[in-house]
Amino acid sequence: MNEKLFANRMGTTHKSFIREILKVTEDPKIISFAGGLPNPKFFPVKEIANASLKVLEENGENVLQYSTTEGYLPLREYIAERYRKKNGLKVDPDEILITNGSQQGIDLIGKIFLDKGDQIVIERPGYLGAIQAFSMYEPIFQSIPLLDDGIDTDLLERTFRGNRIKLFYAVPNFQNPSGITYSRQRRRDVANILKKHDAIFVEDDPYGKLRFIGEDLPSIRAYLEDNIILLGSFSKIITPGLRLGWVCAKKDIMERIIVAKQASDLHSNYLSQRIVYQYLIDNDIDKHILKIRDAYKKRRDLMVSMIAEYFPEEIKYTKPEGGMFLWITLPEGISSLDLFDLAIKENVAFVPEKSILC
Amino acid sequence: MNEKLFANRMGTTHKSFIREILKVTEDPKIISFAGGLPNPKFFPVKEIANASLKVLEENGENVLQYSTTEGYLPLREYIAERYRKKNGLKVDPDEILITNGSQQGIDLIGKIFLDKGDQIVIERPGYLGAIQAFSMYEPIFQSIPLLDDGIDTDLLERTFRGNRIKLFYAVPNFQNPSGITYSRQRRRDVANILKKHDAIFVEDDPYGKLRFIGEDLPSIRAYLEDNIILLGSFSKIITPGLRLGWVCAKKDIMERIIVAKQASDLHSNYLSQRIVYQYLIDNDIDKHILKIRDAYKKRRDLMVSMIAEYFPEEIKYTKPEGGMFLWITLPEGISSLDLFDLAIKENVAFVPEKSILC
Repeated sequence: MNEKLFANRMGTTHKSFIREILKVTEDPKIISFAGGLPNPKFFPVKEIANASLKVLEENGENVLQYSTTEGYLPLREYIAERYRKKNGLKVDPDEILITNGSQQGIDLIGKIFLDKGDQIVIERPGYLGAIQAFSMYEPIFQSIPLLDDGIDTDLLERTFRGNRIKLFYAVPNFQNPSGITYSRQRRRDVANILKKHDAIFVEDDPYGKLRFIGEDLPSIRAYLEDNIILLGSFSKIITPGLRLGWVCAKKDIMERIIVAKQASDLHSNYLSQRIVYQYLIDNDIDKHILKIRDAYKKRRDLMVSMIAEYFPEEIKYTKPEGGMFLWITLPEGISSLDLFDLAIKENVAFVPEKSILC
Repeated sequence: MNEKLFANRMGTTHKSFIREILKVTEDPKIISFAGGLPNPKFFPVKEIANASLKVLEENGENVLQYSTTEGYLPLREYIAERYRKKNGLKVDPDEILITNGSQQGIDLIGKIFLDKGDQIVIERPGYLGAIQAFSMYEPIFQSIPLLDDGIDTDLLERTFRGNRIKLFYAVPNFQNPSGITYSRQRRRDVANILKKHDAIFVEDDPYGKLRFIGEDLPSIRAYLEDNIILLGSFSKIITPGLRLGWVCAKKDIMERIIVAKQASDLHSNYLSQRIVYQYLIDNDIDKHILKIRDAYKKRRDLMVSMIAEYFPEEIKYTKPEGGMFLWITLPEGISSLDLFDLAIKENVAFVPEKSILC
């Protein structure tokens, strides 16, 4: 067919290198440090099976029918209540919409805010899924480096001053792919910069509950009331195959998110919403999270000690306080793509930075 | 917040009147002829429960993990095989991608093809969900009336000749909302017009299996090899709450659909894909479809006979050969919106045409 029929946006989205990496890693020979797959050993399979049976037996006709675009109200109430209890945030259930994983949340945000050529700020290195989702709306990306304790807020401020920035997307806890966490001060600084400019801040937090070192830090929403959208996910604390996440935003933004969600796929999988809610009220999710956290900590500790023991001294690496990601910085002049080629010959895979730059 | 931060596309998407109607119809007092909700009495609740248990017991860790963007391969093979057996179409499993209902298929098509200002053709009256999904990509709509036996192909041809049309979207079987079905000749004519022009044809067919009068007619894909995308759905033959549909397109288009799907939500709900596949191989879906068809035929027959008996003679109405929709045309000068206001006072709801024009 005539390639010119495709929309302009398709030209700007390169074929995903990470997709190719993930394909390679399907080979069981490969030891993969690429991609953030949760450990399936900790999926609550039996509990999910029990929850499925329960909702299908008690409300079968209802849970298999079309449902509302916003999502199952008791599940939204549960999420709002957890924001209140765990994060000290005042969130109304009407400020929550259930999405197909938080990836869809990013897409919906792109849809309602981004016109071609709008400028947005992302972290460097940045979360690839967000770059891919936003790319579809043809923005201009400004990427700002992450320091040890979060984004370089001096540079962020200068970037906001010198450009017409519409949106800033960040993962302040145990960032994908760097593992870096914003300090309390950086969080305050980000909020203060945003307050001075007419822009939207997107706080993506899929890993926040997986902290295994240090104390929980406040959501940036604690310092910034308006023009902020939170994204959350059940993928890392329960299971990703059910594709359930959420968007949290105040009414003015939520109204448009609902319109965009309805246009995108009417509503999220209703059976899964009911299963997850049933699972949540029948089980102790905090206990489950503790179990996952401990397991990830063991792996992180092993990884950090092996790097200290075996890697050359010129290598820099992050020491994540939670989550699933750790980031190596090579000395100047060594290409991560070349290293990838060497590693894959030894059946080891990782994500080279070059593959995720936009 | 500053309304100007929203993307231009959000200005063109009016608040959905049909959404408001559907809210009204949640009131159990209301007798609703608005919206195409399948009859939940025919949801195979027990069979879905059995399938859920089976996949969770046998492959729990696997079915709850992240999966591929294209969807579960055996399910895609099943769909391709049914196209071969039931429609005589040669379809490869790699030409199928699993979506969150066919609504998401429409959104992905908009995403990969439509730039702002591109011209697309839709039917009049047209399927509201498609209008909403496409609107997000800011095309210019050309709507062409449906005649008793399908779209006005003379006008379609003239429209294609006089304009730079990029895409034509149609529901040739038991169309939503009119209930109209394209005759064999109209299907051939549509294919011939498309062959002469460099444009994409989208054949949306969620209701095709629900024919209760007359013989099945060929898919337009039988007459048109290239530049055609088929959309299908399990919502009307199994259950809509699982949000599973599919896109069928040749490789050149499918490659871009995969990129857009990955950017939108990584992949469709994997547990649901496994449940539906298990349901399909453990049960006789054709027998199940016959049962649904008979039930819808009874309702359609009753509706048609009641209209003949009680409606004034000046009223025109379609006599659908399948599916879930029937369309009334009022005499010149009578407003369907005014009639809606009168009807709702008597606790009866329907979809007025004015509410779905773009």
